[in-house]
Formats: sequence, C-alpha cells, structure tokens
Amino acid sequence: MKDVHTPPATKTNPGFFFEDYRVGQVIRHAVPRTVGSGERALYHALYPARHALYSSDAFAQSCGLAASPLDDLAAFHVVFGKTVPDVSLNARANLGYAEGRWLKPVWPGDTLRAESEVIGLKQNSNGKTGVVWVRSRGLNQRGEVVMDYVRWVMVKKRDPQAEAPETVVPTLKSALRPEDLVIPEGLHFSAYDDVLAGEPHRWGDYEVGEQIDHVDGVTIEEAEHMMATRLWQNTSKTHFDGTMREDGTRLIYGGHVMSMARTLSFNGLANAQMIAGLNGGAHANPCFAGDTVRAWSEVLDKAETPAPGVGAIRLRLVATKGGAPFTLKGEDGKYLPHVLLDLDYWALMPL
Amino acid sequence: MKDVHTPPATKTNPGFFFEDYRVGQVIRHAVPRTVGSGERALYHALYPARHALYSSDAFAQSCGLAASPLDDLAAFHVVFGKTVPDVSLNARANLGYAEGRWLKPVWPGDTLRAESEVIGLKQNSNGKTGVVWVRSRGLNQRGEVVMDYVRWVMVKKRDPQAEAPETVVPTLKSALRPEDLVIPEGLHFSAYDDVLAGEPHRWGDYEVGEQIDHVDGVTIEEAEHMMATRLWQNTSKTHFDGTMREDGTRLIYGGHVMSMARTLSFNGLANAQMIAGLNGGAHANPCFAGDTVRAWSEVLDKAETPAPGVGAIRLRLVATKGGAPFTLKGEDGKYLPHVLLDLDYWALMPL
Amino acid sequence: MKDVHTPPATKTNPGFFFEDYRVGQVIRHAVPRTVGSGERALYHALYPARHALYSSDAFAQSCGLAASPLDDLAAFHVVFGKTVPDVSLNARANLGYAEGRWLKPVWPGDTLRAESEVIGLKQNSNGKTGVVWVRSRGLNQRGEVVMDYVRWVMVKKRDPQAEAPETVVPTLKSALRPEDLVIPEGLHFSAYDDVLAGEPHRWGDYEVGEQIDHVDGVTIEEAEHMMATRLWQNTSKTHFDGTMREDGTRLIYGGHVMSMARTLSFNGLANAQMIAGLNGGAHANPCFAGDTVRAWSEVLDKAETPAPGVGAIRLRLVATKGGAPFTLKGEDGKYLPHVLLDLDYWALMPL
Repeated sequence: MKDVHTPPATKTNPGFFFEDYRVGQVIRHAVPRTVGSGERALYHALYPARHALYSSDAFAQSCGLAASPLDDLAAFHVVFGKTVPDVSLNARANLGYAEGRWLKPVWPGDTLRAESEVIGLKQNSNGKTGVVWVRSRGLNQRGEVVMDYVRWVMVKKRDPQAEAPETVVPTLKSALRPEDLVIPEGLHFSAYDDVLAGEPHRWGDYEVGEQIDHVDGVTIEEAEHMMATRLWQNTSKTHFDGTMREDGTRLIYGGHVMSMARTLSFNGLANAQMIAGLNGGAHANPCFAGDTVRAWSEVLDKAETPAPGVGAIRLRLVATKGGAPFTLKGEDGKYLPHVLLDLDYWALMPL
Repeated sequence: MKDVHTPPATKTNPGFFFEDYRVGQVIRHAVPRTVGSGERALYHALYPARHALYSSDAFAQSCGLAASPLDDLAAFHVVFGKTVPDVSLNARANLGYAEGRWLKPVWPGDTLRAESEVIGLKQNSNGKTGVVWVRSRGLNQRGEVVMDYVRWVMVKKRDPQAEAPETVVPTLKSALRPEDLVIPEGLHFSAYDDVLAGEPHRWGDYEVGEQIDHVDGVTIEEAEHMMATRLWQNTSKTHFDGTMREDGTRLIYGGHVMSMARTLSFNGLANAQMIAGLNGGAHANPCFAGDTVRAWSEVLDKAETPAPGVGAIRLRLVATKGGAPFTLKGEDGKYLPHVLLDLDYWALMPL
Repeated sequence: MKDVHTPPATKTNPGFFFEDYRVGQVIRHAVPRTVGSGERALYHALYPARHALYSSDAFAQSCGLAASPLDDLAAFHVVFGKTVPDVSLNARANLGYAEGRWLKPVWPGDTLRAESEVIGLKQNSNGKTGVVWVRSRGLNQRGEVVMDYVRWVMVKKRDPQAEAPETVVPTLKSALRPEDLVIPEGLHFSAYDDVLAGEPHRWGDYEVGEQIDHVDGVTIEEAEHMMATRLWQNTSKTHFDGTMREDGTRLIYGGHVMSMARTLSFNGLANAQMIAGLNGGAHANPCFAGDTVRAWSEVLDKAETPAPGVGAIRLRLVATKGGAPFTLKGEDGKYLPHVLLDLDYWALMPL
C-alpha cells in the first residue's frame, strides 16, 4: 500500500496527499500502544472524570465487568491518534464523524493498533483539495476490533494537476439505531448503586428534548492539552508548535474538548456510564489555551437494550467557551462563535 | 439520607446546605476510585516526593511492608476529594481538621470510597451560615477503614429563615496522643538504611523545639495544581474555572499546598517516612499560580511506639510564599500574609 | 564515606563540595525508585514518544523481549536524578558525558538505585572550583547494573584555601566501539514490522554523513518540564524555583531537552529503536519555557552486531531552539546560540 506514495525526498513522513488514496485501500497505522493504569491516572488528572465505572474496579465488577476498562473516549483518542500521520497530516479540515461504535472494552495491559479503510473520495471543485472518507478501526493484541468509526477530512493534493479520482460518497447513517449498539459482554445494571455513582437520575428520569446545563467550567492550559494530545500519540504539529501562530498559542486537539465536555457532563449525567455509539460530531470553532470550557446536553432519543437493567440514551453534547447555555446556531444556521463542539452519541444508563 | 434534600430543580448536584445536615447523619460519598502505579507516578511528577518508603517497593519491603503503599497524603486527598460534593460545595470556609489517623496502608489496586458522619452543627449568629463538623472515613474494597479525620466547614443556608438546629459542638482532641496512632501492620525500622533514605538524622537526633528550614522552593503553575486536584476528583469549581476571579487565576486546593510542603520537608526530614496522625491544620492564606512555595518545620513532641525501631515525632509544618523562615503570626495573633499552611501531624521515624 | 563531610550546621543536605571527593570513593545515592506503567504513561504524555518498542508490549515481544521496557532515556533520567544531591548540588556546570551504556532493560516493577565512583579530580587554576569525574551506575533490585556512564562537572570548593588534591584525569573513550555495546538478551529484529514501527528506512538505508531534519517542533511549558524533572526526582532547585532568575523562568533540566530531541527524531529515525550507548553530550545553551525545540540528526557511524537482524548506528542528535537545520558551531568553534544539545549515541536498528 505504501508503494502508491511518491518515494520521499527525505526520510521524514510527508503524509498522504489526496491523490495517494484509493477507495478500498487499507492503511495499517503505526505505533501500537499498550495502555494501563498510567493512562487511567492521567485521564483523571487531565479531565474531571468521575463516571464510576471508569474510576473504580469494584464498581465495574458490580456491573458485571472484569475490571474498570480504559475510558471510552481515551480508547477513541488512542485509535484516532494512530490515524493522524496517515489521514490528517495534510488535512485542511476535519469534516465529520459517523457510525462510531465501541465493540469491546479495552482492559489495562491491552495493546491497541489501528487501521483505516478508504471508503469514499471526492475531489473539490477547486482542484486543490478533496474529501477522503475512512472507516478506522482499533484492534487489540488478539486482533479483535475494539472500536470503529467513520471520519472524513479535506486533504490537500500534492499536485493540483493530478487527475481527479472517480467520486465515491459513502452512504452513512445519520445516527446509529439502538440495535446497532454493542453492549459489553456481561454488562448489567441490575445491582447498580446510585449513591456510589453520584446521582439518582436514571434512564426513566430523562425525557427526550430535556436539556441539562452542566454548570461547571474548566479554564484550559497549554501544558494540559499538549500532555493529553501527546499521550494519544497524536502528532499533528499545530497542537505543539507555538511558532505556527502569531500569538504563540497552539490549536487544541478537538478530542481534548470532547473529553473535557464529556467529563463535565457528569454533573447531571453521572449515570450515562458508558459511551456505546458516536452518531456524529462537529468541531464548530477552534479552542485555545485560556478558554473556559463549559458544556450542556440535550436528550435526543431513548431506547431499551437486551442487557439487564441497561437502557440507551442518545445525547447531544455541546461544549462552549462562553455564551448562554442551550444556544447553538444563529439564524443563518451556522454555529455561534462560542460553540466549540456539537457531539451526538449513545450512552448506556441504568433503567 | 438523600431524601432530606429538597428535590432539585435540575439534575445537577446542588450540594448540601446547612439545613440539610443532621447530627448522626451518615453520608455515603460518590465515585469510588481504584488507585495504582499511575497515581504513584503522578504524585511524583506533581510534587518533589522523595520519601523512600513511598518511592521504592524494595525499600518498603525492607521495612516490613508488602510493597510501597500510596503516599499518605495522596490517600488523604482521594478521601477528601470524595467528600467535596456533599460537604464543601456550598462551603464558605474550611475551618479546621482534627483527629486524622491513617489506619491501613492503601495498596496499588485498592479501591477507595468515603463516607462522612455529621458530628456537630452550630448556626452562626448571622443566621445565614453555620458550622458543620464531619468525621470522614476512607474505606477500601474490603470495607476496612484506611483513614479517618474530622473536618469542619462553614456552610451557607439555603433559606436564611430556616430554623436553627440544636447546637452540638463535638469535643475534639487538640492533638492525638501517641497511643492513638496506628502503626501499619508489620512495619519496623530495625534494618533501616539511612543512606538509601537520604539523611542520617534519626528520631534521637531531633529535639523538641528544633526548627528546620527546608530551603527549597517550588513556583506553582496552573496546569500542575489543576491536574493534582482533578486526580483526587475534587470538583470544587474555584480550582478550575478562571472566570471566577478577575485576574483569571484559580484558587489552589489547600491540599496541594499540604503535599508540596510535606514533600519539600524531605530536605531535613527525610526520615519522617510515614504520616500517622493529623492533629490539626489551618489554610492561613490562599495560594495562587506564580507563588513560590517554601516550607519550614518545628518539632512539637516525640514519643516511642511499640513497633521495632519506630519512633513517633510530632511536627508543625508551615508552608509559605515568601517571608523569613520561622515567622508565623503577627503581634495580633493572626497568621502573617505570607503563611499558606500551618499543619500539625505525627510521623513515624527510625529510632 | 559520608564521614568525609564536615558535620552539617543544619539538617538539610549541603551537598558535596570539591574537597569532599576522593578518587576511588563510592557514593551510594539515596531514594530508590520503583518504576511502572505510570512512568511509561507519563513519559508518553511529556514527550512525543513513538518508538514502537517502548510503546507496545506486543511489539517488544515480537522483538524477543518479555515486555516493553522503560524508555532508555527515562532509565537514564532516573539514575541521573539520584546522583544530583551528591554530585551536582554545588556544581557550576555539567561538562560532559562519556562511555554511557545500557546494560539491562528496566522492566515495569523494577526498583532502581544508583551509585557513583569518583574516577578523576582536577582543581581549577582559580583555586575556587574543580572538576570531578564520576562513573555512575544504576542498579535494579537484584543488584544488576542496568546502566552506567561517566559524567564530569565543575564543583565549587567550600574553602578556597583547601589544599588541591592530586590531579587525576581519567582516560575516556571518545566513542564506544561497537563491541562495547550490550544488546539486550533475546533481542532480535528478524520479524520486524516496518509498518507498525512507522517507517520503512532500515539500517541499510542510512549512510554515514547523512543528515536528517526531524521537522517537528514543540514549544515548552514550565509545568511540563517541572513535572518531568520531578518524576526523575531531580532536586536541582534551579529547575523549580522561579525566584532564582529575574524573569521568573526556570532553567530547564538538560535531560528534558535530550528526551524531547530523541522523541522528535522519531520522524526520520523511527527504526532507531533502542539507545545502547552514549558517547558524549554537551548542553550547548540553556533552554527556557517558551522555547520551541526542534531536532536534526547526522549519521556518524554504522556497525553490525551479533544479534539477529540488529544493526548499530551512531548518531549525532542536535536540539535547537530556532536557526537553520544542520548548523551547529560558528567559525570560532563555539556552539551557535540556538543550539541546545549536541548528543552522540549508538542506537539499535533493524538490518
């Protein structure tokens, strides 16, 4: 697969350009990663993470799991980070996510690697860039797929004169159906302890359309977002190199905002224990050090699941850097300038 | 117990107000936490921690323990952090500590949870606030109490018209007696290696009244104190939200200063290996990023213990952000403005 | 050995002065340290570390090792940090390194301690300082030497009138020979996966004299370098105390720059998996928070090794804070002001 590259002039990785991708191509990403209790501790140091199932082995065991797995978004970040050198090194924009599923818990000691299949290509009319759709998969050391998701990015062409590929736009679900979600083997909420979990509100207490202001805010520092982004081995230089922007700030990895918002949502959604599906997401505006991130949620849908005591709840999670809660888009349909993230996901919650 | 709350208007945690507490009430705190080698590494990254027993499994084993336990103050912070949403979310001031005891080492892999019993209540004469005394306990996954301590805080009333409760002021020891201290099972200092520990001064080399300037200073950064405070799952927003103060700084968690001072005290008290008792403590002045924290100690008392080679030493540990060493209070009896912390504790030291 | 000290006036460590050292003296350093998955996670959070063998247990196992060991430079930093209180507390300058060898991998759970033997002394002509050469060794809990290296520093005299010792200048190799390198037991690169490792360039693809610009840059924050330096229990106050310099910045530990440059060198040297020898190194200019660190390398030598599929490559690694790549010294033979580090090491690479 690497042979579709023009041989590099230097030994450093030039990344893929738009004309390097072919529909059906499978890219094996580099640098497998063993995760353990160090990653868990750092996740808790970098984000106000309090969901009990990811905080306590004993709590996870009371829910039928062998131990507390790696946080679902941490697993996502590790997989995402591996794709960066091959998918987004020459990307101009991260356009969207779809059909993200968590298929197996990641246990301490597991080694993750990632691969991506190109499932769509569309050259832009300017001839200088194109959109690439990939389905990325995270695999553990047993070759089991632990998660997969679709992402599409706008990528530069190396040579603007290069011929446009045949346009293939994949058909993607606007949202996963409840039956698409995979419940971790053994998971049940039949002996669930609300008090240890932190809130009494269960699946039945949330109504579709309900909005929750998560109240708390976190002001972000350069050191923290860089540590987080490095931990996921995301190499995108814009997050680390202060000489790339005049004011010396670094663009914050969108996943950092995701994790910040998700962990802030504990306050009001403490029982949305596990993320099972990612329906979509937009990084509406960039985030920089000094911004104070807040979050609000909206209940989009609810469904039952076959697992004992386990309900599914579909949530919109919005991260902001100011502005009134529950404001999202202007009259022009565009995101308001204080909106950082608009995420649509399915979580598992006790009935 | 949660039923004494007024039902919340929203799903976010409003915290307890003064009139929600009853003497005898036991509050089980949320979010149990498994600790491991990640927490140990982070403790060493966030503080200049060098006490050999918490740094080295081999050293701890030479002192009769199975392994190096979680640092005593880290255990305290984890327990303290769990109490915050129920004890200090609506607190105006943290007034004091007493009768803190470390009862069992916390081993890597242990899961900690916490509960607090209300042992005193006293409404203030202004009718708007009251003092709440709680005895908080940390428990491991076997239900064993690993530490307990008394803390009292000034809490807002939700409704200033609410009737004052009967005043109950608990009788607290001004200091633990040596016989109150619990020595970890198996601990001995009969084959203690001074050189590996870092200093030759043992229990017999310290005199009551002796003062030690710990010399070193650490300038504090926002990223570090936030990471520490989050690691202990302390949710008090004043530590994280830079919009709460005009200058954007965040009030630093008092426990961060405790750990900073204790670890700085290695230089001169390297053999005060384990903390066994917390007699009292005052957060004399607030600490902010940019402050350079220094520490000095005074020997308050000494006692023998039944464990082989193990002596107890009672120490005052003072953290400052400037000023001359060994200065503490002004002629008016108030703490000088450069004093951050005045802590009174018992440590275990080789004879 | 400690008896050569003048008895300290206080209980804090005054460090060694030039006249406290004797050729042949062996100093056992304090504070043994158990390392584990927490240190690994932090290393990946603090540096853009991507070498697969230190990132993945599964990859390390495919190379014949039992698991992923502690990063080679992390092992160096832990050993170095232990030597600081006895070797460089009163040092004016860190003059050089030589004959550094990694002799055994450090596994998670291992406990490291350190000792140094004084192998050379030379009083400077000003009578106020002298040069001390030490060979420092890191040992694990089984007493096995895991690494050793020679370092020389300029140390203050306590008493300028003290008599000069006999001058002993050790004979040191300008570079280790290939046969001096110790290959970890069991290591082979006979089933090496280039794609997982991240780059196709192997030992045969590099030519002596070849230069590689590693392209990426990282802007350094105070919080990060302090966390790293503390993690290695390096107590040199200049790295932590912002009151020592007028502008409040802290001098960054030279080893932080080493690790930053080595991990940046992944981009172009992804297959230089393990460091086996340190031939020399100079901290050319100081580094401060706000500097953006970049790196370039030059191939100095190549050699075969007895291990299956394993080649050795000798590299110069230069860290800069600006300036053109491949510039190093001025016409006067002095390092250019943007050069931070000039390191000469042997790495192991698949044939």
